[in-house]
This record gives sequence, structure tokens and C-alpha cells, in this order.
Amino acid sequence: MSDENQDSEIDPEKAARHAEKMAKKKAARNKIMATKTETGGLLIVHTGKGKGKSTAAFGMVCRAIGHGMNVGVVQFVKGKWETGERKILEAFADQVFIRTMGEGFTWDTQDLNRDVAAARAAWEQAKELMADPKINMVLLDELNIVLRYDYLPLEEVLETLRNKRPDLHVIVTGRNAKEELIEAAHLVTEMTQIKHPFRSGFKAQAGIEF
Amino acid sequence: MSDENQDSEIDPEKAARHAEKMAKKKAARNKIMATKTETGGLLIVHTGKGKGKSTAAFGMVCRAIGHGMNVGVVQFVKGKWETGERKILEAFADQVFIRTMGEGFTWDTQDLNRDVAAARAAWEQAKELMADPKINMVLLDELNIVLRYDYLPLEEVLETLRNKRPDLHVIVTGRNAKEELIEAAHLVTEMTQIKHPFRSGFKAQAGIEF
Repeated sequence: MSDENQDSEIDPEKAARHAEKMAKKKAARNKIMATKTETGGLLIVHTGKGKGKSTAAFGMVCRAIGHGMNVGVVQFVKGKWETGERKILEAFADQVFIRTMGEGFTWDTQDLNRDVAAARAAWEQAKELMADPKINMVLLDELNIVLRYDYLPLEEVLETLRNKRPDLHVIVTGRNAKEELIEAAHLVTEMTQIKHPFRSGFKAQAGIEF
Repeated sequence: MSDENQDSEIDPEKAARHAEKMAKKKAARNKIMATKTETGGLLIVHTGKGKGKSTAAFGMVCRAIGHGMNVGVVQFVKGKWETGERKILEAFADQVFIRTMGEGFTWDTQDLNRDVAAARAAWEQAKELMADPKINMVLLDELNIVLRYDYLPLEEVLETLRNKRPDLHVIVTGRNAKEELIEAAHLVTEMTQIKHPFRSGFKAQAGIEF
């Protein structure tokens, strides 16, 4: 397509209105951004019933690794991060510190004592990672589920998160985030389910659900 | 902590109720999952004003790579995927096919002709990737923005997406997804902003915004 052809397709008046509109948008954006000067570790929460909570957290973890950061990952629900995620993280093994709950909470256990002990063990590992000065970001995957079932005392968790190192980013995922956690966080996104492939009879598939 | 100590902490009746509740949950879940038997390529949309749309898509792309899939990425807004994402994707260069819009649409251009031409060029590349049988997943990052500004004819895009190869996963991101696209999709998640760090004066930071 030649330049002449392109020019002939769009009404010059429309193009001029577009240029003006975009210039205004840009100016407004620049004005807002100029007031944002603080940096520091954020407390981030991904909640809601929709998909993408852990996946977006995994994306942030990967991006942080790409920036040369060191990242800790604690999985509060066993067996969630499988082949797909692990293969990527293992390629950057010197930057990634993964802790799982061992024999911990899954939908298959029906043993409250064991679940509480497993949550406690994972939380202790989370605290170690958060205290480690070489680590820049910690993902507490599905911590919200553990808090929802009262496997850990909410106040203890909140106090640790509120007093985290100021330069540390912490990401908490899981549906039903506690109000107090949302209150304490800097960045909260709710993933809302509009449409789910199960509705059309699709089963969980590699690359999508796991 | 010894087993004895753990046992003494939780009321046995509470533990029994818990076991029963979890067993019911698991049975209900198994029953639902048994009805989900279809597999195939999904059309996935991440929309809404909240964060995590592109990040969750990037997480899916990484996970798919981890499963050994080949992935195509078309960026409809220039310069969005920077150092962080690229470093990860470049580590798996033989599985990743990235197309950018070249001199394409950014908030800095105010030239409608150029934006339309750039959107068209990116769309042609997207169609090539979607037609390539070695590619298992294609991410059309920020295609919704291009559609919102009418830089591409909606019907043409919809027809291509509706007639995609049955085994191909396609992910479309960007706020303000068109109703017709949501209608055509299998999986739609809306990222809703509950709290944003800009509110507290934080500026965009590596690993978080980019």
C-alpha cells in the first residue's frame, strides 16, 4: 500500500480530530505521571473468582527475573505449579527460590491437623524468604485460601506483611482475600469471571489451566 | 512440633467436620470435572480496567513454552513488552515468534493514517502466525485497543478469530473488549481495579508495571 493510497482512505478532518484528541490524552497522562515519584516494595493482591490470579503473578515473577531480580515463591496449595511453570523457573534457577508445602493442603486432604501444620510450615518458609535481603520479590501463592480456612492467624500474617522490608515486593493470590489484607495492600486486582471454558464442556488443558 | 502437640491443638469434632466438608467439596468437584471432556484451542480474552491483563497472558505464554509449545506474540501497542519479558522469551527463542508493530501505535503518535497502517501490518502478521501449523498459541496483545479505535474492521477480525484452527489457542488482551468478541470467546476474564499504587503516589517500577 503506497502512502498516497493510505492518505486517500482517511478523511483529513477525522485525522486532525484524532491528532488533537491523542495529544490531549498524552498531556493528561504526562501530568498525572509527574506526580508519581515514590518507589518501593509493593504489597500486591490478586483475588476474585476469575482465572489469571496465579498466572498474572507468575507473569510478574518471570518479568522480575528478566529484570535480574531474585524471586521467592511459596505455594500454599500443593501441586498447583506443575511442569509448565517449573520448566521456565528452572531455566533461571539461580534467581528463583521455590518453597512448597510438602505434604501440605490439597483438595485431597481431609485432615485439618495436617493442613494447619502444613500451612504453618509454609508460612515459616515464607517469612525466611521475606527476610532474605538478596530476594526482591516474594509470591505467596494461594495464601488467601489458607487465611480463609483460618489455617493461619490473620493478625500474625498481616503484621508480617505490614512490616515487610520496604524494598520488597510481595504478591498474595487466591480468591476471597480478607478485607484487612486489601486494606493493607498497595495494588489490588480482582479477576472477575465473565465466561469459563468449562461452560462449553472444555476440560482443563496444558498451557491454559496448568 | 510433635504429632501429639498438633493433635492437642485442634478440637477433634472440628477436625471431623472439616474432613466431612472437604470430602463433599472434592466429590462435587470430581462430579463436575467428569462432564468436561472436550479439548481444543480456546479463544481467550483478558479485559477490564485493572492490571494483569497482559501479565496473565505473558504468564500463559511462559507456561505454554514450559509445556514445549510454540508461541506467537503480536504486540499491537509498541514498546509495551520491554527488557523483563524479552529476556525470558529470548531464553526460549526457538519456541517464540514475536512480531511488533514497528513504527506503530503508541500514545506518542497522533497520526491516524500511520496508526491504521501499523494496525493493518500487525494484523497481517497475526494472521500469518495463526495460520502457521507449528504454532500452538498466539497472543494478540492490546488488540482490543486497536479495535476500540476502529483501526481495524471488527467484522474482519472476528471472522478470522471464529475460523481459527481448532487446535490453536488465541489470547486477546486490552480494556474495552468488544461485546461481539466476548460473545465469540470461550474464556473471558475481567481484571477489575480495586486499588492502584498510583493512588499512594508510587510511580511505575521495574518488575511491576514493566
